[in-house]
Amino acid sequence: MTYCLAIRVNKGLVFASDSRTNAGVDYVATYSKMHRFTWPGERTVVLLSAGSLATSQSVLNAINSDLEDPEAPFNLRKGKHLYDVASYIGNLSQKEQQQHAPALEKSNASAEASFILGGQIAGKTCEIYMIYPQGNYISASDDTPYLQIGENKYGKPILDRIITPNTSLEDAARCAMVSLDSTVRSNISVGLPIELAIYTGDSIDEPWHNKYRAFSPMYKSMQKQWNEGLRQAFSGLPRFDWEKEE
Amino acid sequence: MTYCLAIRVNKGLVFASDSRTNAGVDYVATYSKMHRFTWPGERTVVLLSAGSLATSQSVLNAINSDLEDPEAPFNLRKGKHLYDVASYIGNLSQKEQQQHAPALEKSNASAEASFILGGQIAGKTCEIYMIYPQGNYISASDDTPYLQIGENKYGKPILDRIITPNTSLEDAARCAMVSLDSTVRSNISVGLPIELAIYTGDSIDEPWHNKYRAFSPMYKSMQKQWNEGLRQAFSGLPRFDWEKEE
Repeated sequence: MTYCLAIRVNKGLVFASDSRTNAGVDYVATYSKMHRFTWPGERTVVLLSAGSLATSQSVLNAINSDLEDPEAPFNLRKGKHLYDVASYIGNLSQKEQQQHAPALEKSNASAEASFILGGQIAGKTCEIYMIYPQGNYISASDDTPYLQIGENKYGKPILDRIITPNTSLEDAARCAMVSLDSTVRSNISVGLPIELAIYTGDSIDEPWHNKYRAFSPMYKSMQKQWNEGLRQAFSGLPRFDWEKEE
Repeated sequence: MTYCLAIRVNKGLVFASDSRTNAGVDYVATYSKMHRFTWPGERTVVLLSAGSLATSQSVLNAINSDLEDPEAPFNLRKGKHLYDVASYIGNLSQKEQQQHAPALEKSNASAEASFILGGQIAGKTCEIYMIYPQGNYISASDDTPYLQIGENKYGKPILDRIITPNTSLEDAARCAMVSLDSTVRSNISVGLPIELAIYTGDSIDEPWHNKYRAFSPMYKSMQKQWNEGLRQAFSGLPRFDWEKEE
């Protein structure tokens, strides 16, 4: 399993991902699921992946091959719109899945992978897309300014309460960390390190990026403060009638 | 979908359930999923149900028929241990499912239902059991002092943070309400009213019971306080380095 998240606020974009992959519970490994491509002043693209590691690695390989090949009909730098890039990644993903599907079906395994794509092309707005395993895709809206792939349920309530288009980039990043942390606690197949990227809208430059491990001071401090804050919120909840009488 | 929850703490038991049932998204109805049986001084039993409404209603009918029938080989009053009752309900559920399974399979529908059973028999300890659709069952432990059926993910993080065997009955009940509220907000197939029952250990009497609707003062106040508390907890989270510099 995996949990990846992208948030689009007025000031820019936030991306977060866990790093655990597993083939059953008896083979667990650590892989980055966040892939960043920036051509300063021209475009910046962040790709998050969930699902079959083989499929997502092959898609990444194809993306890099196309970037190296001047004859490639399309690559990350050629799309005029970010949805062109989403369509391109959906196609790569479908092609890769179809290649291995017959063999995988025999083993009752799946080649499916999902992606979140976000970024900005110079002169255009910031955008985020979720690309389904079937290759089609959707973008976020002002009413639902975030997209999730993988294990999305544990970390959703806090997003629904906090995130609006007016949320600051830093608050969106903190909310992403809390959302990831709640998921890591509840689902053993989602694990550290947590990667976080913050893209300042219209900078058309590298997003700020950090990797948080269990011992990272910021992560430890965030966990501690959140835990204490939740307990305080909990202790402030209203009493039942018979508690008031006492 | 459904979300039901039982918590076992040292002081007793807490039960909570939503009331939404649906056959697709275009047929939504309200049904109680909490069923209470008490013979003061002898035993008290609470049953929560999730899954096929037809199956859970039939199981309830069978339970009531067996209670009326002095010749019945087993009924809720006859079990020496609560696990005997769990086994009985598992059998009723399996029997009901098997009766309709062939017809349902043709319609690609499922007769599966899950139950949470909790209560106390005089002279025994308080217990809670989860009964799987297959008829087998598990009980809670001190390390995991709660059981959930239905849509369990959205409401799990707060339980993991707050509930221990030493939690007071009232705090466990407040935590159950928050857990239900988070689920109602995130999953449209889980809905109000929320039923809450609090059983004081060793009372061998009716649990305290209440039904909270959207306009119930306690529920509204709980939602408001929790929302404000969460926002306060959120605003107390650590700042990134560049925010400190400003």
